[in-house]
Amino acid sequence: MQPSAFVLFGGTGDLAKRKIFPALYNLFLDGKLPERFAIVALGRKPFNDELFRQHVKESLGRFSRREGANAAAMAEFAACIQYHAMDAGDPQGYERLRSLLEQREEELGLTGNRLFYLSVAPEHFGPIAARIRQSGLADGGGWTRLVIEKPFGHDLASARALSAALHVSFPPEDVYYIDHYLGKPMVQNLQSLIASNPVLKAVLNNRYVANVQITASETVGVEERAGYYDRAGALRDMFQNHMLQLLMMIARRAEGYDKRQVMESVYPVNRDEAANHVVRAQYTAGSVAGRTVPGYLQEPGVDPGSATDTYFAARLMLDDPIWRGVPFYIRTGKRMKEKATKIVVVFKNPLESRLPEAPARNYLIVNIQPNPSLDFRLNLSGLDGELQPLSLQPANRGEEEPEAYELLLRDALLGDPTFFAKWEEIELSWKWVQPILDAFANRLAPLHTYPAGSNGPAAADHLLAEDGHVWFETAEANPAVGVSPAGETISVAYEH
Amino acid sequence: MQPSAFVLFGGTGDLAKRKIFPALYNLFLDGKLPERFAIVALGRKPFNDELFRQHVKESLGRFSRREGANAAAMAEFAACIQYHAMDAGDPQGYERLRSLLEQREEELGLTGNRLFYLSVAPEHFGPIAARIRQSGLADGGGWTRLVIEKPFGHDLASARALSAALHVSFPPEDVYYIDHYLGKPMVQNLQSLIASNPVLKAVLNNRYVANVQITASETVGVEERAGYYDRAGALRDMFQNHMLQLLMMIARRAEGYDKRQVMESVYPVNRDEAANHVVRAQYTAGSVAGRTVPGYLQEPGVDPGSATDTYFAARLMLDDPIWRGVPFYIRTGKRMKEKATKIVVVFKNPLESRLPEAPARNYLIVNIQPNPSLDFRLNLSGLDGELQPLSLQPANRGEEEPEAYELLLRDALLGDPTFFAKWEEIELSWKWVQPILDAFANRLAPLHTYPAGSNGPAAADHLLAEDGHVWFETAEANPAVGVSPAGETISVAYEH
Repeated sequence: MQPSAFVLFGGTGDLAKRKIFPALYNLFLDGKLPERFAIVALGRKPFNDELFRQHVKESLGRFSRREGANAAAMAEFAACIQYHAMDAGDPQGYERLRSLLEQREEELGLTGNRLFYLSVAPEHFGPIAARIRQSGLADGGGWTRLVIEKPFGHDLASARALSAALHVSFPPEDVYYIDHYLGKPMVQNLQSLIASNPVLKAVLNNRYVANVQITASETVGVEERAGYYDRAGALRDMFQNHMLQLLMMIARRAEGYDKRQVMESVYPVNRDEAANHVVRAQYTAGSVAGRTVPGYLQEPGVDPGSATDTYFAARLMLDDPIWRGVPFYIRTGKRMKEKATKIVVVFKNPLESRLPEAPARNYLIVNIQPNPSLDFRLNLSGLDGELQPLSLQPANRGEEEPEAYELLLRDALLGDPTFFAKWEEIELSWKWVQPILDAFANRLAPLHTYPAGSNGPAAADHLLAEDGHVWFETAEANPAVGVSPAGETISVAYEH
Repeated sequence: MQPSAFVLFGGTGDLAKRKIFPALYNLFLDGKLPERFAIVALGRKPFNDELFRQHVKESLGRFSRREGANAAAMAEFAACIQYHAMDAGDPQGYERLRSLLEQREEELGLTGNRLFYLSVAPEHFGPIAARIRQSGLADGGGWTRLVIEKPFGHDLASARALSAALHVSFPPEDVYYIDHYLGKPMVQNLQSLIASNPVLKAVLNNRYVANVQITASETVGVEERAGYYDRAGALRDMFQNHMLQLLMMIARRAEGYDKRQVMESVYPVNRDEAANHVVRAQYTAGSVAGRTVPGYLQEPGVDPGSATDTYFAARLMLDDPIWRGVPFYIRTGKRMKEKATKIVVVFKNPLESRLPEAPARNYLIVNIQPNPSLDFRLNLSGLDGELQPLSLQPANRGEEEPEAYELLLRDALLGDPTFFAKWEEIELSWKWVQPILDAFANRLAPLHTYPAGSNGPAAADHLLAEDGHVWFETAEANPAVGVSPAGETISVAYEH
C-alpha cells in the first residue's frame, strides 16, 4: 500500500471513538495499513498528543472487536497518531495543519497522499472541502481523497446543493461517500455470490423469482436521537440510502451491470399515487422482548403531534428484462419484533401439481446482520413422506467478521471505490424518494400505526396481499399461506 | 391397511434373519403393519413355532436397528409368526400350506390378501410361482402379490426366460421386483426433491449441467461370495440393476416422466465399440484403511485366471431434450478407497470471466449412504476476498432412517409399486448391458487393474478426460482441475 496520511476532522467525536479508531487499529493489527502511515486527528478540544493517544487507547479497550489488552500493539498504533486542535471554520487553522502535515510527511518519508475524513455535521462538508482546496492541503504531491458520511442532504434539492458544493472543490471520483451497509461482508459478497454461482444466477430472474423482500428492522426505538430523527424519519434515515443501496446490490446481479443502471430502471412513483405503493407508520406503545416500551409520540424529545415515519415499506418495480414483473418489497422500522437485516428471495411455486401436498416455496435468504449467513430453503421429503422445508445453512466460516469500517477505510486508502455510494446513485435515490416526501408533507398518504415489538402495520401486509404475496415471516409461520397465489406460475417455455 | 398374510419362502435364510424379520419388527413397532396380520415362514428345517419364534427374537436382537430389548413388544410381534416346514419342490406341501393359511386367516379374521415373498435362489422363482397358482394359494379371495429379489437373470436371455416363467402364473403388476436401492430414503426423495424445488428443477438440465456422476463404491472385497461373484462381476452384480435404477431415478427428473422412458432414451452401445464407453478392472493387492489386503485373484474361491470385473465404469448419454449432451458417468467397485453411494451433479462453469480468480464449479451432491444428506456446493467470498467453496449441508433431520426393507415391505403390503423395479426397466437394462457382456466375453475390452484402496483404474480417469471432465474427488482435491475444459460454456440465449 502507498504511504499516506489520514486526516480526521471530528477526531474527538463519537464516530471516531466508536468506529474509526477501532477500525484503524484492527487494520493495523492485521497488517493492512500502509507501512508508512500517519494519523492526524483534528478537534476543537485542547488535547496534547499524549493525552489524546490515551483517550484513543481507552476507546479501543471499549469498542475494538479485538482485545484491547495488547498494550504493546496499542502503544505502537497510538504512536502513529497526532492531535491538532483547530476550528474548522478558521482559515488560519488549515495553514497550520498544512505545515504540520508536511513536517510529519517528511519525518515519516510519506509521499503526499492524503485522505481527509470529514466526521462532522453535513453543513460543514462544503466549506471544509473548499478550505482544503484553497489552503493547498490538496496539493501534497500525491493523491487527495475526501471521505464523508451521511446524511447526504435531506431531500433532492439539498443533496444536489451538497454535491455541487463538494464537487466544486473535488472531482466526484475523489469523493468517497460512505454507506456503511456497503461495508458489511455479506453485502460485499452479493456481487461474487451471483457471479461465481451459475446455479444461483440461473434462477435469479423473473422466470423463477416471485418477489424479493429486503428488510432492515431494529428493536430499539428512537433513543437519544429524537432531535434528529423526528425531522428525518425512516424514509430519510434508512430507506433513501441503505435500503436502496441494498436493492441496487441484489438487483444488479451480474458483473458489468452497475448499481446506477438498477436505480435508473426503477419505475418512478408520483406524488399522487404514492399511497398505492408505500406504507408509512409510527410505533405505539407495546412490548419488546418482554419489556413494556412507550409509543413514539411518548418518547422524550418527540413532538407529540409528530407525523414522522418510524416504519416505511415500499413496493418497487424495475423496468429491466431480468426483473420486470418482480416486486421488490423493501421495509425498515424501529421497535420491530426482530433486529435483522436480510434479503429474502421468494421463488415462484413449484410447477408440479401431482404432489400429494403443496410444498413450501423455495427461498434464498441472505442474512446480513446479525450472523451473516446464507440460508437456502428447499423441500425434502421427511421419513413419513411429507414434504418438509430443509434449510441449507453454510457451516460457520470460523473467521471473525471485520467491521464494515475496516473494509471501507482500507478501500478508501487503496483508492477502490467499489463499495462506496456514487453521487449518481445518491441523486437517483433522492429522485425516487422526493415525490413520496412530497406526498407525506401533503398528507396524501395515511400514517398507520403498529405496536412496538410487532412486525409492522397491517397496511404493509395488505401491500403484499394486493399482489398475492406475504412477508417471509408470515409464510414461515404458516407455509400453506405462502403458496399458490392465483395466476402465478413458472412459464414452461424452456421445459421440453 | 388391509388385513393380510405374509408368506415367506426361505424363512430360515440369511436375508430373512438379517433384513426381513427386522424390517417387519420395526414396522410393527411403528404401527405400520396391518392391524390384522399373519406371518407364515417356510423352510425345510423342522422347527416348531416356539423354537422358530425364539430364533427370530435372537435375530432381532442382533440385526434390528432398534433395541431388541423390548421383550414385551418382541413377544407380541413373534406371536404373529407361524413356522411351516415344507419342501418348495413338493406339490403336497402347497396343499398343506393352503389349509394352514386358510385356518390362520379364519382365526384372525383376515380376508385372503396374501403376499408371497420368495427369498430363495432364482431358479426356484418360476416353479414356486407356478405351484402357488396351481395349488389355489393365489385364490384366497383377496389380492395375491409375489415379491422377488435379484438376481433377475444373468443376461438378457435368462432374464426374459425368468419373466416369462413368472408372468405365466402372475400378471406383471402382481410381481414386485425388489431393488433395495429403491428403498433407500434418499433415493426415494429424488422424485420429490426435484418436483418440489423449482430452484433445482430450473438447473437440472443440459443448459446448466456439465455431467452427472453416480458412484457406488465399497471398501470390502469379494468376501465369502467368491463362488457367486466370480461368475457375476460388478457389471451384473451392481451396475445392471442398482446403478441403472439410480440413473433412471435422477434422470427422470419430473413427475410424469417415467423411469422406463429414461432407460429407453439411453443411446445403445454396441459390442465392438463398448471399449470406448466402458472400463472394467480388477483390484490388485493394496491397502484399505491402513490394512494390507490381497488382490482379487488371490482371494479364496476365485479362479486365479479370472477375468471378472470387480470395478465397472461407463459413460451413458441420453437421447432426451433435457439431458442431450450431458454425460452420465456411472461406476461401481469393490475395494475402493471409500464406502459411499452418491450422485454428484456437476454444473457448468460460471459465465463470468471478470472474477479475480476462477471459482470452483457448483455441485449438487446427493449422499445416499452412509449419512443420507444433500450437499449443495456454492462459492462465497472469504473475508480476504478470495472465493471459497461453501458447502450447504442440511441440518441433521434428527430422525432415525428406516431401513430400505421397511419402506419396501410396507409398500408391497399397500400395493404401491412406485419404488419397485418394473419388468420393462429390467429388460431395458439387460438390453443395454448385453453387448458389453458380449464384448467382455470376446475380450473386446481390456481388463484394467487398480490397487485395493484406490479410486479405481486410471482408465476411468481417461474416460472422463476425453470429455474434458474429472471425477468429483479429483476436482475436490484440486478445484482448479475441475474448471474450464475447453469449449464448455453456458449458452446465453436466456440471458438478456
